[in-house]
Amino acid sequence: MEPRALLSQLAIVLIRPKIPENIGAAARIAWNMGIERLIIVRDNLPDREAMAKMATHKAAHLIDNLELYHNLAEALADFSIVVGTTARRGRQRSVEKTPRELVDALLPSLATNKVAILFGPEDTGLTNDDLKYCQMASAIPTADFSSLNLAQAVAIHCYEIYHGIVHAKKDMAFSPQLATNHELESMYAYLEDSLYSIDFLNKVSHTYWMTNIRHFFSRMTLTAKDANIVRTVCKKLILYQNNKKYQNLGDP
Amino acid sequence: MEPRALLSQLAIVLIRPKIPENIGAAARIAWNMGIERLIIVRDNLPDREAMAKMATHKAAHLIDNLELYHNLAEALADFSIVVGTTARRGRQRSVEKTPRELVDALLPSLATNKVAILFGPEDTGLTNDDLKYCQMASAIPTADFSSLNLAQAVAIHCYEIYHGIVHAKKDMAFSPQLATNHELESMYAYLEDSLYSIDFLNKVSHTYWMTNIRHFFSRMTLTAKDANIVRTVCKKLILYQNNKKYQNLGDP
Repeated sequence: MEPRALLSQLAIVLIRPKIPENIGAAARIAWNMGIERLIIVRDNLPDREAMAKMATHKAAHLIDNLELYHNLAEALADFSIVVGTTARRGRQRSVEKTPRELVDALLPSLATNKVAILFGPEDTGLTNDDLKYCQMASAIPTADFSSLNLAQAVAIHCYEIYHGIVHAKKDMAFSPQLATNHELESMYAYLEDSLYSIDFLNKVSHTYWMTNIRHFFSRMTLTAKDANIVRTVCKKLILYQNNKKYQNLGDP
Repeated sequence: MEPRALLSQLAIVLIRPKIPENIGAAARIAWNMGIERLIIVRDNLPDREAMAKMATHKAAHLIDNLELYHNLAEALADFSIVVGTTARRGRQRSVEKTPRELVDALLPSLATNKVAILFGPEDTGLTNDDLKYCQMASAIPTADFSSLNLAQAVAIHCYEIYHGIVHAKKDMAFSPQLATNHELESMYAYLEDSLYSIDFLNKVSHTYWMTNIRHFFSRMTLTAKDANIVRTVCKKLILYQNNKKYQNLGDP
């Protein structure tokens, strides 16, 4: 597949960015690296003038076509692979890839899957709630001071993506099309309901278990068919439990 | 050698930067990547407030210790390797390295040589006069739109440098200590004078030949001793020519 076609599978997603200039700088570097889809998750569109100035007229079309969503789930609906970017953390280093490792991992999936790279707000980064949508996490290796400027973090990721795609081996084996985020979230919703139905989950343990279950499934790179199997089993379980409940209610 | 010691051999040199925020952003990413020396070549110090805000308090010491020079030759005096960063240009691509190739080329020299990475002004980039000090040129690979934001270009170079140093092979063979820029410029000055003395150079051909001669010597990675040999030969030639001139004047 052509680099241009692979690059068109990618989107940069800025979650609650505060500074319009950072969105403009992200647009410029994205377009430097051939990435055309820029999504922001925010209550409203930031000041166009400030964004466009940093984007320069060459990347102005990314600002004109900026996709605005009010919540992350909506923004991610048609993506199959979601990557969260975080500052390097000593303890969790093993689960985070470097941007270079990330690109190596993404390349075989790019031909058949849409990929979103998430960047959190300037001051706080991604929340755990944002990260629950992510199958992978990427952290830029740094010296002691690990907090990067938002636009710089976008720059380094876009650069690695472009570099990786342009230098990708021609004979690379492509992986299958994976479930979209919409299909996965539907599966998780049924899974959650079914686990409630058997009293496995309660309000206290809910977040702990669902996070672990999401991590478990993230490692499996599910196809749409896989997600549908899990969802169907869950549906059946819920139905069975409901019938039993009514049956029990029926029993005097 | 420890990564920290290798990183201390490097300096980021911003030539005539216009926007103080870019200097601050460069300071932040430099310090993210363990690089502590930031040099600017400009008539005066830019607004400290604007620089410090973008640097954040974690990299404020780079702003406090900012080295200001009025001209590039002074700034580069104690550096042995000078790298110019340019936008990718189709025609000259063969002489430019990618930042990754650049770091591979620099690594063996870092233990024994100080390296300056030059970045030109936001709007115009490095001039040919700036580039004459450079032994190497680096261009970030991009899609069609090749002009990067200054701070993003600094980010990608600092990132590659840090990544390369941290992942360098332990058993890497180090190259010898090279001539400093001061020693090289002194050699070029003698060379120029000696070429004038034999009428090889004139005002018209001067820039053309000196540029080619600089390119020729750049490829040879001269040590201080090498530079001294060339200088001594040139000195001798100039002396010889001067003596001949006086001798000719003495002849009636």
